[in-house]
Parts: sequence; structure tokens; C-alpha cells
Amino acid sequence: MTWKGYENQQNAQPSRRTVIAATGVGAAGLALPGTAAATAASPPLSPAQAPAHAPAQAPVPRDVCLAVARAVLVLDRDNQPLVPGYSRILLGDGLPRSRRAPKKVLVVGAGPAGMTAAHLLLQAGHRVTVIEANGNRVGGRVKTFRTGGQENAAQPFADPGQYAEAGAMRIPDSHPLATGLFDALGLKRRRFHLSDVDVSGMPALRTWILVNGVRARRADYQRDPRAVNRSFGVPARYENVTAADIVRTALAPARALIDGKSGDALVEGWATVLERYGHWSMYRYLTEQAKLDDATIDLVGTVQNMTSRLHLAFLHSFLSAALISPDTAFYELPGGTATFTDALYDRVKDSVRLDRRAVRVEHDGRGVDVHTVSEGRDGQDVVQETFHGDEVILTVPFSGLRHVAFTPALSYRKRRAITEVHYDSATKVLLEFSRRWWEFDEADWQRELNAVGPGLYDAYRRGRAPADGTLLGAHPSVPEEHISRSQRVHYAAHRATRRDQPEAVPVIGGGSITDNPNRFMFEPSYPVPGSAGGVLLASYSWADDALKWDSLDDEERYPRALGGVQDVYGQRIEVFYTGVGRTQSWMRDPYAYGEASVLLPGQHTELFPDIPAPEGRLHFAGCHTSVKPAWIEGALESAVRTALEVHTG
Amino acid sequence: MTWKGYENQQNAQPSRRTVIAATGVGAAGLALPGTAAATAASPPLSPAQAPAHAPAQAPVPRDVCLAVARAVLVLDRDNQPLVPGYSRILLGDGLPRSRRAPKKVLVVGAGPAGMTAAHLLLQAGHRVTVIEANGNRVGGRVKTFRTGGQENAAQPFADPGQYAEAGAMRIPDSHPLATGLFDALGLKRRRFHLSDVDVSGMPALRTWILVNGVRARRADYQRDPRAVNRSFGVPARYENVTAADIVRTALAPARALIDGKSGDALVEGWATVLERYGHWSMYRYLTEQAKLDDATIDLVGTVQNMTSRLHLAFLHSFLSAALISPDTAFYELPGGTATFTDALYDRVKDSVRLDRRAVRVEHDGRGVDVHTVSEGRDGQDVVQETFHGDEVILTVPFSGLRHVAFTPALSYRKRRAITEVHYDSATKVLLEFSRRWWEFDEADWQRELNAVGPGLYDAYRRGRAPADGTLLGAHPSVPEEHISRSQRVHYAAHRATRRDQPEAVPVIGGGSITDNPNRFMFEPSYPVPGSAGGVLLASYSWADDALKWDSLDDEERYPRALGGVQDVYGQRIEVFYTGVGRTQSWMRDPYAYGEASVLLPGQHTELFPDIPAPEGRLHFAGCHTSVKPAWIEGALESAVRTALEVHTG
Repeated sequence: MTWKGYENQQNAQPSRRTVIAATGVGAAGLALPGTAAATAASPPLSPAQAPAHAPAQAPVPRDVCLAVARAVLVLDRDNQPLVPGYSRILLGDGLPRSRRAPKKVLVVGAGPAGMTAAHLLLQAGHRVTVIEANGNRVGGRVKTFRTGGQENAAQPFADPGQYAEAGAMRIPDSHPLATGLFDALGLKRRRFHLSDVDVSGMPALRTWILVNGVRARRADYQRDPRAVNRSFGVPARYENVTAADIVRTALAPARALIDGKSGDALVEGWATVLERYGHWSMYRYLTEQAKLDDATIDLVGTVQNMTSRLHLAFLHSFLSAALISPDTAFYELPGGTATFTDALYDRVKDSVRLDRRAVRVEHDGRGVDVHTVSEGRDGQDVVQETFHGDEVILTVPFSGLRHVAFTPALSYRKRRAITEVHYDSATKVLLEFSRRWWEFDEADWQRELNAVGPGLYDAYRRGRAPADGTLLGAHPSVPEEHISRSQRVHYAAHRATRRDQPEAVPVIGGGSITDNPNRFMFEPSYPVPGSAGGVLLASYSWADDALKWDSLDDEERYPRALGGVQDVYGQRIEVFYTGVGRTQSWMRDPYAYGEASVLLPGQHTELFPDIPAPEGRLHFAGCHTSVKPAWIEGALESAVRTALEVHTG
Repeated sequence: MTWKGYENQQNAQPSRRTVIAATGVGAAGLALPGTAAATAASPPLSPAQAPAHAPAQAPVPRDVCLAVARAVLVLDRDNQPLVPGYSRILLGDGLPRSRRAPKKVLVVGAGPAGMTAAHLLLQAGHRVTVIEANGNRVGGRVKTFRTGGQENAAQPFADPGQYAEAGAMRIPDSHPLATGLFDALGLKRRRFHLSDVDVSGMPALRTWILVNGVRARRADYQRDPRAVNRSFGVPARYENVTAADIVRTALAPARALIDGKSGDALVEGWATVLERYGHWSMYRYLTEQAKLDDATIDLVGTVQNMTSRLHLAFLHSFLSAALISPDTAFYELPGGTATFTDALYDRVKDSVRLDRRAVRVEHDGRGVDVHTVSEGRDGQDVVQETFHGDEVILTVPFSGLRHVAFTPALSYRKRRAITEVHYDSATKVLLEFSRRWWEFDEADWQRELNAVGPGLYDAYRRGRAPADGTLLGAHPSVPEEHISRSQRVHYAAHRATRRDQPEAVPVIGGGSITDNPNRFMFEPSYPVPGSAGGVLLASYSWADDALKWDSLDDEERYPRALGGVQDVYGQRIEVFYTGVGRTQSWMRDPYAYGEASVLLPGQHTELFPDIPAPEGRLHFAGCHTSVKPAWIEGALESAVRTALEVHTG
């Protein structure tokens, strides 16, 4: 057959792309009864029955780009915003009234998406069972290291009042469903300081950039970026431009396609972004579109946190930049983000079955069976239990669904998405200190260090304090029992700390950037009432950087993380180290299998449309079904969408 | 400054690229005394002293491409092959005679590279200490699950005679240093059957491809690929072309640049490959150069094992394909690949210090101090020890060097390479069976199954045998104690096994391909003498696929892996399952941090030249310093190169 003949044949039947675009399952996914979207994917396709593909090398059809653009903007097929309707359902009226018989609904996963969908369906009169894999905790990737709580957790830090976020820690003001739901649940929220502020709450930018051995306060870097930039060997024309400005300029050609537009024009603009750059990595964009050289990419990669994700989709980083503007305010919840999932849990508690993990889903014309196993931790036997429902909402990350069996098999496109959607790793290493030294000025340091031993303040300042670990936790405020001998040995052996001593300037919140393995550090935005101490996010890293932290034992990881912080802030902080740390590796979490879906080049147009599409009695929720992976907002959008699918379907 | 002005300024000083190309440190790295290469990187650069970069958006200079091309071909700067000289040193004469005083040399890592370099240096009269992190094992990523051995391992399988490879399992005939060293050490090698053969050793291709619910024997797929190809929805012109042929055609434009060439022309050809495609991912190559559609990429990705690495460097996969031809013979070592590292260890044993992991390297004009810690396993205290030498050969993967402190800091380029070089994950799941059922014909099955219970043979054939795990290990040959209750529960809950029963046809070696999570399975090429059983490599997966297996508990992973094998070969194999499995996750291995360096797009020209380059008294060996990552050959090349650097430097 000639090429021509093949094309003609292809045109005789609708291509896969056309099917998707026409049914709109890939768009906002709001499948209303009677529309093609509700029925397109059911009955489940037989495994071998793969839809026809578009001809080789055709550009991504405009219809697909438009459908994904609508998902980006959370619009329906007529380009009308879905969020106002979602808000009314979520925050006020609940699901629309219906004369249909109530259903028995299974929800797999008690994270924000699952618990919210369950609540809406319960409110509307359905019978709901939420199946949660964890034996003692709900919340998914909302997780606070804390004493007690819903999960009745053992004290995580030396100070029983201290807590810190393992997962979601900041919620942007531009996320109306999340912030609205906090308010509706009566949760007080307060500003999370992504950049450090002074005691009056004004931007201070006194935290550090420490790269290539050059240390600069952020404010100084903004005023004069040359020393830092030269340390990467950037060309002369970039020497005096901040990394943030270089990125802004680099992204300008893509931004120009959407900036200042609204309505249909904005949809078209996003579709063009997808068409042009949907199959590009950020590395390709920076080299071929922005024409940056290697050195400048090193600079922006290090300072603007792009290095570890350069080979992932351009769109992932661009979407984050485009949907959350640099002056967006962020919020946090006093007591931890888990107070939010506590509140969600309170509403659905009676319907939640803990310690049951879905491993097989059987579905047919009559309903859905979800087969589960228990964790079998602490020497208990693993038990098996089967749940039956009319429909099921699966909030499990696709990385986890890869090991869930479906009978009959899911459609070809869904299986490809489950197999291929990339999940990225992220690891947080948290360290507890008995004093919030990051709020100290030099007078504080002098007083507190000389309380440890006379002259210690000066010894540190001159780089003459012993670096063998004997001063770890030496301050009288540190309880003795937590610093193990092994930690001291690891500290002494590694001893990577710089001996120069930067001047303290008190900050609140924000954090520092370094090219050492710690990469990003964050100071808490608020004290814990009644405590002079605090927990520092000593290292927040992604992708390959994260996997390397995962390979260390705790006894080694904590002194290493401490050393990385000392590089930036000086050795003296060690006297307040309590010896207690916590680590959250989302890649090693047995039910998360990663921080979030961070798509590879091409996956936004190739796979994304198939992610949220329902298949018969199966509905797919969770942040990965939105274009806001890792954000609570995306989970909530999906909760309302799937609750509507079930309720009105 | 105008663009013109900037360019002129750049031209006034040699660019980074020019420096590298002129000194040749990035090429084969054979730094002989008196050449610029030996001195270019010393004394160590101060951290902030980054070399000037090439102007933005210049193509990769031809000199850099030529230098990397020489590394690909293992040529010196005059395009003369280095391997003959390496062979003479490694297999015959040892290092050249020298009148210089012997040195005290530290070697970090007792894998093939480290132990080989140590042996050469000891032979030449140097004093050598090899520092190995593992408390009881040498060999690095050569690792055999076996009873006893150098590491005195506890019995890994139910049958004490059984063994299986956790790491390197096959050595291509086209690797002269590896095969030559086996022979020189008196190790018998035998053919490893990458594809299955019949009892007379002739190609059989009776193993399976099972994708999208379509099962085909490899030979049948080669004869008529349509059923399998259609299950992906490939366009008509690819329906009747095997995945291997599609890939071959796709790679043809790149191969045309090197095929049929030799000498300088071949070097130029490789340089052009690097110039054109060095910054491309395999995904980009397949879509933009080969113009394949999504469906065809799905097909070749699944069947030819490219899916999980599509976003990684085109060059990685292309190099593998180009340097190892499809008809290459592979070898294995009876008793396991660890018999090779046993033999290496025997030669250097007195110089090896186990249980000492390098965490900090201090180096100055007088020498090198390597600070180490012990593992501190089994409740022992961690201890610290410092070793001193004149020079050091570091064989640690760069993923591991990220957490090693250097004082003074390494050069800017080396630090970038250590930070950015991508290491990929790979996980092997091995299952033990009491019989080598893959060698059975139907008569064997009938006899053995009816020995379990009358009529069982037919029950399986009709899909009527119980699938609840009661038949796991039901054959009388299976010892009772290894199948835990939890394994049976997990098996019964997941129960993903297909009920259709393919016909058995005896095979030896080779293995099957599936799109289920197992992905690739390999049958052993030989029986273990005296044993009717065998260990199956039930799942060999990479990248994201591997990380998902890592997240499962053993008690769940093994019945899951069994289920995946049953999908392909039929449920009945379960009666021979002993309940014993072994897993090797190279990403979770605390000293490997990954299977091997698998570079990202652009890293071959941006970072590779900086990987092997010595820095003063520091030398860098290991397979990642060659363009044969994960292959013993690459490790041996680096061993000879660094031994020469130390000996003649």
C-alpha cells in the first residue's frame, strides 16, 4: 500500500485523536449523562482492541491540543469555566438533586480526593465505602509528622509539641477550591513565607544562595548577581541578570502565546503552547527556544531548581510557572496540613475502612468488586477482603495502579497511561533544633554559645571550634538521649562543613539554596506555641537528588543533612541539634510511589487525555487526573468531577 | 556589550571546550606523563574558578565531538586503538617498567575496576590499599546470590546448590578485555542464551511475547507480526514488520554515518552522530528522525524494551545497539559471575580493607587522605578510619560520589558531572522452582501434575484448577516451609493470572516479553548440576517500572512476580514454586545508587568529557568513566587507564 493509500484508509475511520476530541473525555472530564463522554469508554474494550492511531508523524491534532488546553484552564467543552460550579457543589449546595436511586459507591484511597468525593456522595444519599491502604492514617500525600493526631502517632521529635510537614506544606491563594474548603471547614489559615520576612512581615531576603563556594544573601544577589553568576562561567551578557530574570526572559516566547488573553483566545493560546512545545523537554526549550548556553542552564537549574527536571516535560515546569504567579500568596494551616485531612476524615469516618489495600478490581455489567489485602505489619497475618459496589472511584496514583489487576483489562489507552505516566521522586529531610537559631542576631548567638562554654562564640567565629562532633547538641537546652554515637562518628568522618562564619541576621520563614546535596532548605514560618525550638526542612530535593538521600541510613542521613545546613549558616548551629530527624521519601512510600505525576515530553498530549476518562463503572480521581499534580486543588477538582460522574451517570 | 563584542572577547581566551579538546582529557583519557592531559586538571581548581564557557547556542564544537567519538571507539588522540595496549598490560606484561619510586596508592571500591587496577599496581611494585564499603562482599555490581562464596553468604534458595545473578549476567564476545581476563584467570566460560535454544543448541524462539492480551511465540511473531502489531494499533505500513526491523530501519540514518567506515572516517562518523543527535532523547529521534507514530513507538518500546528509557539519551541506546551487534555471542561463568570477582579478589585480598566506606577525601600537594566509616550493621558501633596515600583511584559511581566530601572542592566541571550524571534504576526479581518446568513438554506436565493429584493436568488445561493459592508449591518436590501464609493471601487476592493454558514446548535459556509489570523474564541457560530445579529471572525491569517493584514487600512481590510469569506460561507452573525469591534493586543498593550511568540527552557531549579526567592526585575509574556503562569491559578499560595514570604520572 502506498503512503497515499494508507492515508486514505485512515481517513475512512475516525482516528483515536478524533474520538477523544469529539467525546471530550480528555477535556475537563465532566461526563454528564447522555453525552458521548459518559459512554465512550464503556463497555471496557477487550485488551487487544486498540483504537486506530493517527497517521505517522502527523502533528498533534488541534482538537487534542484544545481538549488539553481546556483541562489546563478547567473549562468545559464550550470553554465555560467549571470551577464556579465545582465551588457551589463543594462549598455550598452539594451535588445536584437527583431522582435516581442511590448507589453503592466504593472509593479507593482516603486522601483529599477520595474523602471529598465520598463526602459529596454521602451528602447526596449514596452509600459509600472508602477503602484505605494505610492501617492507621488517612490523608495520602497530606501528612504531618506530629504527636497524636487522627493517626495516633508516636512523638516524632524530642519536643512533643513540634511538628513538620512530610507532604503538602503550602497552598496558593490562587487555588479557590482548596482555600475555600479550608474556610468552609472552619480551618484558620495563615501566610506561609516562601521567602523570608523580617519580624514585621516585610520581605527580608536575608537567606542564602551558596553555590560554587560563593555565598550571597538573596537580596544581595538581586542587587548584584555577578559573583554568583560568574561562578558558573555564564557569558558576559548574563553576568548581571538574576537567574529568575533569565528564566522569565527564556519563558517569554511561550508566555506570549497566553499572556493578556482570555476566553476562547486563551484556550487557543494554550493549545498553541501544547502544539509547539508539548513534546519538548525543558532542556530542549532552554537550548533551542531560549538559546541558553550550558553555563547559564547550570545557573538557572541550580538557583531556580530546574536541574533535576530538565529532561522532563517543558510543560510541567511551564504550567507551574504560568498558573502560579511569582507574587502569589501561600497559606499554611496551624497545627499542620493534616488538620485539613483530619477535618475531611471527621465527615466520612464511619464510611472509611482502614488497612485495606486494593489489589484487584473486577467489573462487569452488574457492578464492581474490589479485592483488598491488609498491611500485615507488626507480625499480623495478611488478610483478604472483597468489597462490592455499583461504581468505584479510584484515587490511587497511576504509579500504584500499575500493580492493581483489572478484570476485564482496562482500555488500551488507559493501560498505556498507567504504564508510562512518569512519577517523580521527592525527599524531605527534617531536623529538629532546640532553639530557632535562624531567628538569632549576633547578640543572641554570643549569649547562647557562651552559655555552652566561655569563648565558644569566638571559637566558632574564627573557625577554631572542634569539628569532630563533640559539640553536637552541646547547648543546655538539648536533651541528651537522642544523639547516638553513630551519628557523631558519621558527622566527624564526613566533616564537610565550611569553617567560615557568615553573619547572622534574623529571618522568619523562607529558606536557602545550595548546590550541595541539601539543595533547598526551608525555615518554619511560625514558632510552635510554647516551644523555643523548631524543625527545619534541612533538605528538599527531587528526582535523582532525592534518590541519593534515600540510600543513606537515618544515622548517617541526619548528620549529613546537618552538615549541609552548616555549610550555609555556619558550623555553630550544631549546638542546638537535638539528634532527631525525620525523612519522607515519597518514592519509597509504598502507597504513593512518587511525589506526583511529572509528565515526560509528549505525555501531555499523548497520555493526559486518557487519564481522567471514566471506563464504565470505573472513575479516576486524584491530583494526577488534573493538570495540577501534587496540589490539593487538583485533587479537589477531581473529587467533584468524579462525584458528579457517579451521581449523575 | 554587543553580541559581536562578546564573541570577540570570548575568542581572546580559550573556551572550555577548546581546553578539553586540546588536552584530550575527555578523549580516551590515557594521560601519559609530560602531556598536557596529565597536568590540565591539577592543581585542583578553587570552587569558584569555573572555566569560561563557549558562547551561547554555539553547536557543540567538532573537537568535543571528536574527543567523545574517540572515547566511544577507545582510541588515543591520534585515532590509534588503545585496547591492544590495554590487553598487553592486562593479560600479559603488566604495566610498563618504570624507574620512578613506588607509590602508596589508595583504591576506593573493590569491584572489577578497583580490584583490577589494584592488581596491576601491586604487580608493578606499588603499595596499594583497596577500601571497600561492604562489610563482607567484594565485586560491586557483579553479585551472585549463592551459598557461601567469598562473602560466606547464607543459603539464598531452598536448594543450597541453586544460585542466580543479581547483577552482571552476560558478557559479549565483542568485549576482549573481559573475555581475555576470564581466560587468563582460568575461568571456563560457556554460552549464555539470550534467546532460547532447543536441546541441540539451535535457535528455537519458542518463548513468548504477551502484549495487549495477544500471546505469540517469538518465532511465530517473526513469521507473522500482524496480530501483535495490530494490538497496538500501528498503521498499516508497519503491521507486517517486526519490532526489531522497525527499530533497525529507524536507526538506519544514524547508522549510515558509521556503518562500513573505519579509521579516521569512523571517528568522523561518530563525531557527526554526536553532533546531530547528542542532545536528543530516543523519543525525539523516533518521532522526529524516524517519524514513527505513537502506536509504533508503543510497539517497539514494549517489545524492544525502549519504553522506560525513551526520555533518556538517544546515544545510550544507540551505542548499545551499535557496539553489540544482534548476532553477538554472549558468555556466562559456571557458578556465577561472582567467580570472576572471587578470582580478582584472590589476587589482591591482602590489600583489601572491607567495611570501610569513603565519605571524605582531602588532597593537597603532599598526598591524599581518605576518611571512611564502617557499616555499623547488626548493632555494631560505626567506626571511623583514615587512610593515607600518594594518589587515589576512585571507582565509586558518580551517584555515590555526590555524598562524598572533597577538600578542596573538585573542579567545577567534575562537580557538575557528579551532580547531574543520571543513574537509572534496575530491579531483578528471581523465583525458585523445584523443577525446570520451562524444559517440559506436555508429557512431562501430565506426569508431574497428576503426581500432585489425579486429573490436575486436565483441570489446569481447562482453566478449572483453583486459583486461590492452595496449589502453590503443591508438587511433592517442593519443601513445605517456605511458602508463608501471607504469600498465599497475596496470591489469592491479586489473582491476575490468565486462565488459558498455552502449550508447553521445551526451551533452554532465553525468555519472554510481556507488557505486564514483569516486562522481561529469563530462563537459565544451564541446569545446576545435581538439581532438578532452577531459578527464573521472573522480572527484569528498568527506570519507573523497577521503582514500582521496589515498593512492594517481599511477601507480596514474590507471588505478584509469580502471577506475571503465570500470565505468560500458564497457571500450572505454581505447583513447583518453592516460595523463595530474591530481589535486587540496584537503585536501593546503598553503595550502587542505580544500575549504571544512563546519560540524559546532551550529557554525552556536555558532561562525559569531564568524567574520566584526573584531578591532581585523584583518578576516576569504573564503568561510568567509559562509554560502556554497566559492562565489565568498561570497568576494565578504566582500570588499565587509571593504573597507567598512577604508574606513569
